[in-house]
Amino acid sequence: MPVFTESASSTRDLRVLPSFAPPLPRLSSLHPDLVDEDKYEVVVVGAGPAGLMLTLLLARYGLSDQSLLCLDAKPSTLKSGQADGVQPRTLEVFKSLGLADEIVNEACQMWEFAFWNPSPDAKKIIERTAVVPEVLAPARYGFEGTIHQGRIERILDEDLGRYSKRGIRRDSRVVKVEIDESDSAFPVVAEVECGGETRKIRSKYLIAADGAHSVVRQCLGLRLEGESLDHIWGVVDLVVDTDFPDIRRRCAVHSPRGSVMVIPRERISTGEYLTRLYVHVPDEDTESNARTRRGKVTLEAILQQATDVFRSYRFRPKTNGAIDWWAAYQIGQRVARDFIVRDNAGRGRVFLAGDACHTHSPKAGQGMNVSMMDSYNLAWKLGYAVHGLASSSALLDTYNDERQINAQNLIDFDRHFSTLFSGKEDASSGLTPEQLHNAFTTGNGFTSGCGVEYGENLIVQNGQNNPIQGDDYLFGIIKPGRRLLNVKVKRYADGWRRDLHDDLLSTGRFRIICLTSTDLLDDGVSSRTLLSIGKLIHEYPPSLIEEIVIHPHLQREFEWSDIPECVKQEAEMCFYSGYELEDVYGIYGVDPEKGAIVVVRPDGVVGMVTELGDIEAVYSYLAGCVSLI
Amino acid sequence: MPVFTESASSTRDLRVLPSFAPPLPRLSSLHPDLVDEDKYEVVVVGAGPAGLMLTLLLARYGLSDQSLLCLDAKPSTLKSGQADGVQPRTLEVFKSLGLADEIVNEACQMWEFAFWNPSPDAKKIIERTAVVPEVLAPARYGFEGTIHQGRIERILDEDLGRYSKRGIRRDSRVVKVEIDESDSAFPVVAEVECGGETRKIRSKYLIAADGAHSVVRQCLGLRLEGESLDHIWGVVDLVVDTDFPDIRRRCAVHSPRGSVMVIPRERISTGEYLTRLYVHVPDEDTESNARTRRGKVTLEAILQQATDVFRSYRFRPKTNGAIDWWAAYQIGQRVARDFIVRDNAGRGRVFLAGDACHTHSPKAGQGMNVSMMDSYNLAWKLGYAVHGLASSSALLDTYNDERQINAQNLIDFDRHFSTLFSGKEDASSGLTPEQLHNAFTTGNGFTSGCGVEYGENLIVQNGQNNPIQGDDYLFGIIKPGRRLLNVKVKRYADGWRRDLHDDLLSTGRFRIICLTSTDLLDDGVSSRTLLSIGKLIHEYPPSLIEEIVIHPHLQREFEWSDIPECVKQEAEMCFYSGYELEDVYGIYGVDPEKGAIVVVRPDGVVGMVTELGDIEAVYSYLAGCVSLI
Repeated sequence: MPVFTESASSTRDLRVLPSFAPPLPRLSSLHPDLVDEDKYEVVVVGAGPAGLMLTLLLARYGLSDQSLLCLDAKPSTLKSGQADGVQPRTLEVFKSLGLADEIVNEACQMWEFAFWNPSPDAKKIIERTAVVPEVLAPARYGFEGTIHQGRIERILDEDLGRYSKRGIRRDSRVVKVEIDESDSAFPVVAEVECGGETRKIRSKYLIAADGAHSVVRQCLGLRLEGESLDHIWGVVDLVVDTDFPDIRRRCAVHSPRGSVMVIPRERISTGEYLTRLYVHVPDEDTESNARTRRGKVTLEAILQQATDVFRSYRFRPKTNGAIDWWAAYQIGQRVARDFIVRDNAGRGRVFLAGDACHTHSPKAGQGMNVSMMDSYNLAWKLGYAVHGLASSSALLDTYNDERQINAQNLIDFDRHFSTLFSGKEDASSGLTPEQLHNAFTTGNGFTSGCGVEYGENLIVQNGQNNPIQGDDYLFGIIKPGRRLLNVKVKRYADGWRRDLHDDLLSTGRFRIICLTSTDLLDDGVSSRTLLSIGKLIHEYPPSLIEEIVIHPHLQREFEWSDIPECVKQEAEMCFYSGYELEDVYGIYGVDPEKGAIVVVRPDGVVGMVTELGDIEAVYSYLAGCVSLI
Repeated sequence: MPVFTESASSTRDLRVLPSFAPPLPRLSSLHPDLVDEDKYEVVVVGAGPAGLMLTLLLARYGLSDQSLLCLDAKPSTLKSGQADGVQPRTLEVFKSLGLADEIVNEACQMWEFAFWNPSPDAKKIIERTAVVPEVLAPARYGFEGTIHQGRIERILDEDLGRYSKRGIRRDSRVVKVEIDESDSAFPVVAEVECGGETRKIRSKYLIAADGAHSVVRQCLGLRLEGESLDHIWGVVDLVVDTDFPDIRRRCAVHSPRGSVMVIPRERISTGEYLTRLYVHVPDEDTESNARTRRGKVTLEAILQQATDVFRSYRFRPKTNGAIDWWAAYQIGQRVARDFIVRDNAGRGRVFLAGDACHTHSPKAGQGMNVSMMDSYNLAWKLGYAVHGLASSSALLDTYNDERQINAQNLIDFDRHFSTLFSGKEDASSGLTPEQLHNAFTTGNGFTSGCGVEYGENLIVQNGQNNPIQGDDYLFGIIKPGRRLLNVKVKRYADGWRRDLHDDLLSTGRFRIICLTSTDLLDDGVSSRTLLSIGKLIHEYPPSLIEEIVIHPHLQREFEWSDIPECVKQEAEMCFYSGYELEDVYGIYGVDPEKGAIVVVRPDGVVGMVTELGDIEAVYSYLAGCVSLI
């Protein structure tokens, strides 16, 4: 195409780069002291999964390097991480950040979970009693991913580099934290050791994402409560040589000689596939202390135990570096009583996230996921507080309401789940397939991350006029406090087959989804509601509230000119058919004759639902969290 | 998870990075002269889409910076590229390189094509006569992507950086190329201007990917043949303010005042959506030369013409930098008679690719795609030649057999297609919807890239015992010379729902796909064939030939121990159910009672098909292209 004459705008050149997330609008002014290198609006302590996720989200929301600082004690990113599971809900969140693809492409995808139990046939020793899908809850990704934790951290860290010139400040150890209101604008003081010097860094808010041994938590006198010790487990990542037929599936194997959990892992550069084994190491010695008992666990003991469990099969490491990593551990199921430390006025100033406020047994694959989801819950609330978008400081308090209880629920579930897999009683007797299967299916809301539900609070409101029908919430029926399930919709403007989640990106925006009723082509409640929503969104800071419109099957074909003009004006590219690709109304529990208004929070959680026409309920809900212009 | 003791292998650290494609094995020795900075095995001239794709593939196959050099005259990557369409087949190829996601996520996806024609209702002037899917052929991606060409180049260039330290050598202009066999190992000589100096660079092979005005082509006395001039068209990328209802769909708009093609484009950072318009500029002056006529085309004239065509609608650029880019052009439909220049012994030494050997009208969205697919066809053949994996130099000759004829076919199609859209006759009379629709559907094999078919040659063989039933090749029936359609399969080992294309990655490997018959559980022809394939692959260089096994619905459930042991040994992670997710046998035209052996080339094209048991045909096919160990 030999061009004779051409002319291009200067912004065109930028378009060769991946696009950037649009920052949140900012109503508050920047404090003049922010030029000071020792003052920040937000300081994040720790750059594990929780700290990285929080820092990345805040940077994307528009907190600059002057406003935001993340410190980590280690000199570099984690290389030999322990966690390896990425839940379907976590994948959805990564997708909403444009970061899921590498994981989806390169992680091992676990689609199936096999149960093995003692066989009545003495020669077989163990036999497969069931194979169930790994993920029962509908989700955008129907599998759990397993991949090196260091890779998750690298993905987050690399993306942070697009939004922050500084990135993580490493080799910086926080040794003391206190609240000192003598400087009321920056009341949190952290003492940081870096390169042999100690500096005091002040901030408006500080987040403790510094792990199970959190210095911040200890300085502020909080502690983790609960059991501190569990059974001793050995964990090993290896390339295995075996004829056990389910070595590529997740397996819970109970044999007369003990229990093993098999977690298939990603393919490595040799072309071979890793396998992770969690082995319950027999432990006769109940007298010695934990450290002594753990110290007795060796790689050989772990492998011997695995060989015993699989003894009706060939089972050994492939030679030549087949052992990738191994460890012995005990884990407590513990949680802090409060995730927030407040100043004298009762305003939250220090927030705990991740292992700093809860620890879990790894067998349900929770740790890394829950930690990142803490940050995902907190980040937008903090962003709104800093940018002057929150209507009150009570928005920040909901972090504790939502995540502390969730952590407690998880620990209850986890304790139950762990006991099933490591209790001596089942190792000898074997659970019935039904027992195990039931434990697994009821737990799937937790293990997939898709069943998390927050109770009613400032930003989770069931409302007076909730028109939703049905109660199978795990399968998509809309419920305030749960994440909105992804559905496939066809866009009116261009016929693009889209995932609704692609309009719920993690850009910190609220979304009002209007599921119109069948009267959209008439001058009825659908039209009136759409007009009201169009008016409402302009009363809030620009771009903060986005509108999505879905329609059911209507009486006839239509053109733009047949529907209220405000749909094209406000939601041209977010206007969808809700019946051609999937039965959206049926999945969500919305009667097409009645429709519904759904407010979705920036973290993808349904905030409230009300009937068409009831725009006052939307105003009232938003008043609790978002400032008007 | 407080770990007490852990131990990790050193390779574990590498696993935080995206994985690398495994290089091809190399049988040939490296020529000692390669240490010389002026000698290379392959020199690529030009780093547009064709040159970048070729260089990236060769680097992935294992050609080091000592062996491979890509030169480009420009000082930096293209910023104001013209091409914008990425076809479904091109997306498949990008996916096979792990590079599709950014395009899929961020390009505009064109799913629908609307046709507008003069309306019998004088007030309306034009009316929509049809909306058809943009892509009719089944493909892994059911849309055409539109995105800035500079972005495609950036994606390729960035990935090249993972495999080559040097990357593209820019600011290096090739001024002369000749074949000089005085140095028989490096017979191609290029004179290169760089930083005011001229150097002679010798190579075994040189690829001219230096565009429509190719210096290499001119030096070697080849020329493009065909019409050199076409109608004059204006093209503009802008944000448009309009009430034309199909502005987000691809449209062919014929009005009594002329024709416009609408191409929706990606969303830009302002949140608005670009639109590309191709406008046929009326041209009364048939006397002046091309240059003079093109010079008369202005942005105002282009916009005026668009406004005229859309005059029953509001149609204007949005203010404030709404015009992103514009150009006026004429295009010839031209092709070189030979894409290869040979040495005295008849061995191909210089290869033309992309615009250097064919140019097209942009209206069918061919240019960038065909150029990259030239390279995709050539790269593995060149890699095999350089690495000593090709059984004869005739493998390289197939590049001309396949791509020259394809370019010629495309030009024939393109001429027909362009005439339909720009001929004066249709502007006044309007095509009937049927005419346009038919032209579009028959052309869809070309416009999607999925209908490309190479004729029988050394590496496309129909064979004596082709058991395939059916002839709807565009819809998936297997045909040597066409790309194998992607299908969804469920993996036996772990239940992973996979795309078969994810086992056909662009790593330069041949694949033998054994679609077993229903006798897999018996000791029949399926077992015998699998044993033979298992033996065959070890007679070729290690890892060069990969095996994939698909089975139809069998009489009963089975375990690994019920099927031939070689399946688990050779294809544990490439063994699939071909009926649970899609009816693979039906789609491919394979009778489950009979099965089939399919050899797929490294470029995803079916090389040959034969019946189960006929392993001799596979040996005989491979003998033509691949060296034994």
